Amino acid sequence: MKVTAVIMAGGRGERFWPKSRNSYPKQFLSLTSDGETMIQKTVKRLLPIVAYEDIFIVTNENYVPIICTQLPEIPVSNILAEPVARNTAPCIALAAAAVNKKYDDAVMIVLPSDHLIKYDELYINTMKHAVKVAQKEDNLVTVGITPTYPETGYGYIKFSTDENDDMGVYKVEKFVEKPCLDVAKEYLNSGKYLWNSGMFVWKVSSICKNLQKFLPTIYEGMLKIKDSIGTDSYEQTLSECFESFPSESIDFGIMEKADNIYTLSGSFGWDDVGSWLALEKINKTDEYGNYVSGDVITINTNRSIICSNKKLIASVGLDDIIVVDTDDAILVCDKEHTQEVKKVIENLKICNRRDLI
Amino acid sequence: MKVTAVIMAGGRGERFWPKSRNSYPKQFLSLTSDGETMIQKTVKRLLPIVAYEDIFIVTNENYVPIICTQLPEIPVSNILAEPVARNTAPCIALAAAAVNKKYDDAVMIVLPSDHLIKYDELYINTMKHAVKVAQKEDNLVTVGITPTYPETGYGYIKFSTDENDDMGVYKVEKFVEKPCLDVAKEYLNSGKYLWNSGMFVWKVSSICKNLQKFLPTIYEGMLKIKDSIGTDSYEQTLSECFESFPSESIDFGIMEKADNIYTLSGSFGWDDVGSWLALEKINKTDEYGNYVSGDVITINTNRSIICSNKKLIASVGLDDIIVVDTDDAILVCDKEHTQEVKKVIENLKICNRRDLI
Repeated sequence: MKVTAVIMAGGRGERFWPKSRNSYPKQFLSLTSDGETMIQKTVKRLLPIVAYEDIFIVTNENYVPIICTQLPEIPVSNILAEPVARNTAPCIALAAAAVNKKYDDAVMIVLPSDHLIKYDELYINTMKHAVKVAQKEDNLVTVGITPTYPETGYGYIKFSTDENDDMGVYKVEKFVEKPCLDVAKEYLNSGKYLWNSGMFVWKVSSICKNLQKFLPTIYEGMLKIKDSIGTDSYEQTLSECFESFPSESIDFGIMEKADNIYTLSGSFGWDDVGSWLALEKINKTDEYGNYVSGDVITINTNRSIICSNKKLIASVGLDDIIVVDTDDAILVCDKEHTQEVKKVIENLKICNRRDLI
Repeated sequence: MKVTAVIMAGGRGERFWPKSRNSYPKQFLSLTSDGETMIQKTVKRLLPIVAYEDIFIVTNENYVPIICTQLPEIPVSNILAEPVARNTAPCIALAAAAVNKKYDDAVMIVLPSDHLIKYDELYINTMKHAVKVAQKEDNLVTVGITPTYPETGYGYIKFSTDENDDMGVYKVEKFVEKPCLDVAKEYLNSGKYLWNSGMFVWKVSSICKNLQKFLPTIYEGMLKIKDSIGTDSYEQTLSECFESFPSESIDFGIMEKADNIYTLSGSFGWDDVGSWLALEKINKTDEYGNYVSGDVITINTNRSIICSNKKLIASVGLDDIIVVDTDDAILVCDKEHTQEVKKVIENLKICNRRDLI
């Protein structure tokens, strides 16, 4: 069966302000020294198992030109622009319509566009395995990540150790929301939980059955959209359907309710690059634990992240501080407060300073 | 007797990098919200007791245009450019030559150009008092500052409580170098020490006698310079004399050796503005103790100093951090490490990045 990939690239990435902006979010930035952007890496990583013409990207209208520029190998007809953002369920339904139109049934590997993976080969092996499991019956497969510490910023997947194929595939018992630290520690110690990475593998036919069962409005819309693909009414149908769709995540809308959900535990150096802290995980640091890029002088500075833009940044006596310069804004943030970068954006919104968001 | 003032304005002010540069040091910057530069404030403060035409400024050649621009009321002939820097003794000798040429004898109030004073009226009263004391015999008067905490960055003056005129004038027992913290605490508790502010008052004739006695080379040169003032040979004489002068401070060269040194204890809100920390002392801070200037958003930020230039600075979760943006460099510095800003400049020197120094 044909294997396709669907990359979800509509996110705003507020936590990477001031580099990420509404007009240019995280997935289109390069956060590694090789200069490749997150979405370019996501596509390149898939190529051993999915051809360019089978990679679909769902995004919002504003980002289509950026994607065309960064990924000229992807057919423009594979770039699917959502008229409005309605969370992941409608996004995946739109992609299912396009894949269904092109190939009738096929395997869909659904991926975020802005995660990093250290060990591409292990990743591909896991994905190959997931593709096999997804082709059996109507299995919905989610790729879980073996936790390495009690992270409170991720959702978790509880898997059942009773039924498994001895190849690292487990039946999912339940999905759980982001835990507090004590609960996260319990999860980690139990050995029965994986991080929910937001990566899914299933057949178009499998996800359609579940859409029909759990999200009938979206399913009906999906059928209309599919019929309109390639016709003059596509734009209008898409627009009308999306306006009518509820805003629903695939996790809550389907994965938490469906049967025959399986998970594979992936250990391929996954990072969701959720904040500036990721930079020191994915890049080399100096002997004092600093990650610096560009023109930077560090004096008595430890475990800091300093990204220069066009001018020198001198850091003196800093511990655990993030400094990011851009053309119109500078962020200086304590590493323990990265989640509060969103408050800067809220402030900018209140002050109607759209150019800086 | 005529009262003149001599403002020493040759300093480089490295501790205010990146705003202060070799080409534009601290005394020419505005560090207060009123927009007046340090040297403009120094001149303005004196006007109740010294006229513009009696204010002399000693500086280096490069700064003459800046002074002419910032202080157009000062006669250009009163701006004295040192050919090379030779510390304060030759600087004061040059000023003494100019004052001596213009007025024969006169009182000289010698002042740094880059200190701030909160209470101008108290300052003027102290200066008037100092001028009176300086006119008696050959007294050399130094204005000491009543210490308010055990500062280790200043020299101290020990005064004798045996002889005083009951008007706050004391005979100086000795000058002492910057102490360690324990010693500074002793000084503070003893009630017998003042901070050495580098402000002096004396007659030209008094300082000349002491130059002749303790620094004869400089005294001889001074006489030659005086004779050459207004002639074609001035530049050459000045240049030759300065080349031959030893580099000597007035404190070490004369004040620590001479007799009849008196001190007045000033309490007029003096600050030597020795580092970025001064900004929070001399300006208003917000309810969290932050001093911010320009376009700044602070989230969960306390006791920090943030100076924006042309773009937004967003600070998140910072405590006790200094952020200063300029056109070509950004400083981010912990408040406990301000003395290490000099290491940035050393680094720039080693890398031959003169444009940034």
